[in-house]
Amino acid sequence: MREQFHDQLRQVFIDLAGICRQVETAVARATQALMSGDAAIAEQVISADIEIDRAREHVEDSAFELLSLQQPVAGDLRTVVAALRMVSELERMGDLSVHVAKIARLRVPAIAVPEPARPTMSRMGLVAEDMVRRVADIITSRDVEAAIALGRDDEEMDQLRRTSFAELLADDWSAGVEAAIDIALLGRYYERIADHAVSVANRVVFVVTGEHPSAVG
Amino acid sequence: MREQFHDQLRQVFIDLAGICRQVETAVARATQALMSGDAAIAEQVISADIEIDRAREHVEDSAFELLSLQQPVAGDLRTVVAALRMVSELERMGDLSVHVAKIARLRVPAIAVPEPARPTMSRMGLVAEDMVRRVADIITSRDVEAAIALGRDDEEMDQLRRTSFAELLADDWSAGVEAAIDIALLGRYYERIADHAVSVANRVVFVVTGEHPSAVG
Repeated sequence: MREQFHDQLRQVFIDLAGICRQVETAVARATQALMSGDAAIAEQVISADIEIDRAREHVEDSAFELLSLQQPVAGDLRTVVAALRMVSELERMGDLSVHVAKIARLRVPAIAVPEPARPTMSRMGLVAEDMVRRVADIITSRDVEAAIALGRDDEEMDQLRRTSFAELLADDWSAGVEAAIDIALLGRYYERIADHAVSVANRVVFVVTGEHPSAVG
Repeated sequence: MREQFHDQLRQVFIDLAGICRQVETAVARATQALMSGDAAIAEQVISADIEIDRAREHVEDSAFELLSLQQPVAGDLRTVVAALRMVSELERMGDLSVHVAKIARLRVPAIAVPEPARPTMSRMGLVAEDMVRRVADIITSRDVEAAIALGRDDEEMDQLRRTSFAELLADDWSAGVEAAIDIALLGRYYERIADHAVSVANRVVFVVTGEHPSAVG
């Protein structure tokens, strides 16, 4: 019974890592669509989101089954509940990628991000993608050190957001109000993807150590 | 044992309704600070958020205790897990109120929302506050009809968001890029508060009927 439980729980974490890889693809493609104005890539992100939603439902069903049939306690219980929370956050990261793709699609055939804002926005996309990739590895490896490092690297995203605002509010901003609003919202979406990535990594720390990262790192 | 379980579960839902009332106050005060440029009210929202966080921790501890000591199955299990999700969303709604209050505080002694955008933004604040108040009632009453009605009324928030964008992008917008960015982000925060309100109400429907609202209403 306990062995079966741990096999099933292992499978839940394999599924979580798989969803995280799907989110990584969504973030990468959304940024590509945004920077190129390619409607077909934006559509791919939007239509693929249903697969992330389905994968979430599958993980939720498995977690409920574990809770219901195996009635775990203590650390095992906390691990199953953590998995339920992680899958909610991963789904939300997928939704945020869809928001980025929709702004890209809305401006086709133009490109939503005007020239002066492109380096910062492009870097935001890369940082977000890199953080999601590392979270997928962290879910698989349960590497506490890597999870704590991810939290520190989130600071680059915060700094990029400040840089982006400074660009929008500079005297020489000439791309207009619409582009500025797009960029402010895009920055918010990437920042939230990064926040969720850190939160998922923190839940891995909690599963492994029984402590929240602030108590560990 | 079962009676004790149901007493404890009832207390969890009383606590959830209490947190929802705290969020209602946070939303109301954040809007007030935003519309008046009153730094003291903004500070109240920001400093009171720790109470919402503490109340969330208390509900989480109670829910874990229920799962761990009482090992519920079927509908009872789903209800406890729903409570864990509801409390996460309520905490998030508190955080979003803090975001609104921080934009208000950032612009003091000026008012973040310029004259032409005030009616729409003020209405957004009222709709969000009203939705949160109704969710608190729905958690207490478990009124499925009221919960389904809330989902429909979320459409007003979506319409207000479109109106707000139209105002920002009108030819006669003269309040500048900074104010436009503030308003776009504020609109996003209120929209997310409304989304979470609908989601919490939907979870009540699920707890009562065992079905998601799309299958009920």
